[in-house]
Amino acid sequence: MTAPNPYVKQYLMTAGPTPLPPRVLSVMAEPVVYHRAPAFDTLFARVLGRLSLVFQTSNDVMVFASSGSGAMESAVANLVGPGDPILACAAGKFGERWIELGEAHGADVVRYEPGWGARLDPDEVDRRLAERPEIQVVFATLSETSTGVVHDVQALAEVARKHDAMLVVDAVSGLGAAECRQDEWGIDVVVTGSQKALMAPPGLGFVSASQRALDHAAQRPGGTYYFDWERTVAELRKDAPATPFTPAVSLLAGLDVALGMIEEEGLERVFARHDLLARAARAGVAGLGLDLFGDPDERATVVTAVELPETIDGGKVPGLLRKRGITANGGQAQLKGRILRIAHCGYFGAFDIVVSLAGLEQVLAELGHEVELGAGVGAAQRVFLEAGVGAVAPPA
Amino acid sequence: MTAPNPYVKQYLMTAGPTPLPPRVLSVMAEPVVYHRAPAFDTLFARVLGRLSLVFQTSNDVMVFASSGSGAMESAVANLVGPGDPILACAAGKFGERWIELGEAHGADVVRYEPGWGARLDPDEVDRRLAERPEIQVVFATLSETSTGVVHDVQALAEVARKHDAMLVVDAVSGLGAAECRQDEWGIDVVVTGSQKALMAPPGLGFVSASQRALDHAAQRPGGTYYFDWERTVAELRKDAPATPFTPAVSLLAGLDVALGMIEEEGLERVFARHDLLARAARAGVAGLGLDLFGDPDERATVVTAVELPETIDGGKVPGLLRKRGITANGGQAQLKGRILRIAHCGYFGAFDIVVSLAGLEQVLAELGHEVELGAGVGAAQRVFLEAGVGAVAPPA
Repeated sequence: MTAPNPYVKQYLMTAGPTPLPPRVLSVMAEPVVYHRAPAFDTLFARVLGRLSLVFQTSNDVMVFASSGSGAMESAVANLVGPGDPILACAAGKFGERWIELGEAHGADVVRYEPGWGARLDPDEVDRRLAERPEIQVVFATLSETSTGVVHDVQALAEVARKHDAMLVVDAVSGLGAAECRQDEWGIDVVVTGSQKALMAPPGLGFVSASQRALDHAAQRPGGTYYFDWERTVAELRKDAPATPFTPAVSLLAGLDVALGMIEEEGLERVFARHDLLARAARAGVAGLGLDLFGDPDERATVVTAVELPETIDGGKVPGLLRKRGITANGGQAQLKGRILRIAHCGYFGAFDIVVSLAGLEQVLAELGHEVELGAGVGAAQRVFLEAGVGAVAPPA
Repeated sequence: MTAPNPYVKQYLMTAGPTPLPPRVLSVMAEPVVYHRAPAFDTLFARVLGRLSLVFQTSNDVMVFASSGSGAMESAVANLVGPGDPILACAAGKFGERWIELGEAHGADVVRYEPGWGARLDPDEVDRRLAERPEIQVVFATLSETSTGVVHDVQALAEVARKHDAMLVVDAVSGLGAAECRQDEWGIDVVVTGSQKALMAPPGLGFVSASQRALDHAAQRPGGTYYFDWERTVAELRKDAPATPFTPAVSLLAGLDVALGMIEEEGLERVFARHDLLARAARAGVAGLGLDLFGDPDERATVVTAVELPETIDGGKVPGLLRKRGITANGGQAQLKGRILRIAHCGYFGAFDIVVSLAGLEQVLAELGHEVELGAGVGAAQRVFLEAGVGAVAPPA
């Protein structure tokens, strides 16, 4: 693919698609294998085993050729029938997707919307479920990429359980970067995609559903065919697990290598690396005298949202970074021009944070904001130096 | 990906996924680009232009991160509401998918099922539409991969038009290998996937819908979100065409190169190559004294289905080919063990047909069938020699 200017080296610093490890890229260039042959069976079985590790679950993990939004739709289409009351929690763009999905499927959507950048409050969920005890399914977000906030889904799962409701978590941008212990925390459904912390190309969606969720879905047949859980799980439970429709074999080959790297690094170390990168990013932002957007806490290990100074034209920041070869996320929808998001989810190391902060420093200066060059980078550097060499080293 | 036995060279001879050109494979190993940046805009606009060429249409071509079945579901979900009568034509496994999809979405499915291997008869479609004039949508298949038959969708489109009904064609395995002039023939909706004649990896689904079909869909909101046409077309009609959800950028990069090769070879030459490969395959089958399955005619340019001798255990054929490194399709469902399918759809040249026939000769001999080694290959060779050098050369 051609860069806009081929003489500027490109740095992909977005929260998804995230940069891919060279090993993942190179396996994608190998010949495709036929999906009903032993070579694929071996690959797919290994991928499924590795997915269980990342989901921290004993459920069958369903694999769809789709983006994460397709996997999200599968949860709504399988669990919710027309007129069913559901609770959708939304504190950003991706939370709002649950509302839109619920409405597209004719659900009676009860909304909990504390505002973009807020953290979902388990007590507020508790109150709404107490008011509407007939609600059987609650939808929430692990990492709200649009704001940088990572929600406390463990606490949400407790509240849902108290009301005998199921919790469905959109972990598209979070799984593998922020803790999400599905079985231990009792989350009924976890949905994710390939192109964030899983270090694989976009185009694969995953759903891990508890037996309770599968049973609930089995009582509501129809409404979807491609994303039908019963059909999908039946194929997974065969002697040689398979998919009902042609899988995206090249992407699965890439995912297999990426998940192997996560296994090699170890999930605990992966989380520790994301935590360190996030702390360094936050230190860098503070070093530049800027504020974080919204209400993040130490769980915010996926993306760091920086409030841009009101005195500059924030809408220009992504374009000026791009001229320097850095592709980064500005704000979406109502946050356009107001924030910049520093990504650290997936195949990121210490010096990627340095690059993002250095780019931000240059662009702030160009836009006339008074900035001490090196102040942001330096603050991040101190965090890394304290942590010690190798603390943020994903496998090469 | 590991082959079962790494010392046996592998030959992918299936009808999908089909073998990929080296140029397509190598672009997949390049770093991913962010999907909301100019580099992607350029790529996506080029892909859309090239898709119009292959679809032979001026419609917007929708691109989904999904397999072809997902794109098929989008047609049913957008065009058909619960209780709506539809006519589903099925003469094989993929035709039957329309029936299953219609039922999953609660349609009143009128079936036309002349049997696996038959050609769809336009008069029979005419008769059914005359009996049920309230039917607004007819579903059919271009190339029925399970049987090798390519249906006369031009004639079906005429019949549908006579009854003021829309025709939806599953061209997943056929588009780019068999003629399907959407605009000229007046087909309202054509659906395909990336992994067959388009010479790209699996994981992309495409839908080209006429304005009439889009208007019909707009009167039936809901039912699907991820596959919603209105949302998808709105993104396509922006100044910089985009997708509503994260696209499978690596697969699109591969597709772009593959479509560029089709453009380079020229669509007419692509069809002529497929025609020649099919004629050679049929000659090879005849040379072995075997019969074709079902009722194929000269349109059968995608896959050649061979009836296996009743005296051998046909179920063993794919496995014995695989031991030799050849992955080929046996029969599906009711045809398991009864047929072998010789694929020639996508990146296939003359010597791929030679390989498939040679493998079949060896396996027939191993299974005790009396076979003159070289008789099948020789018959195919004569067809190629007559056609002249270069008649079946896709770009290298």
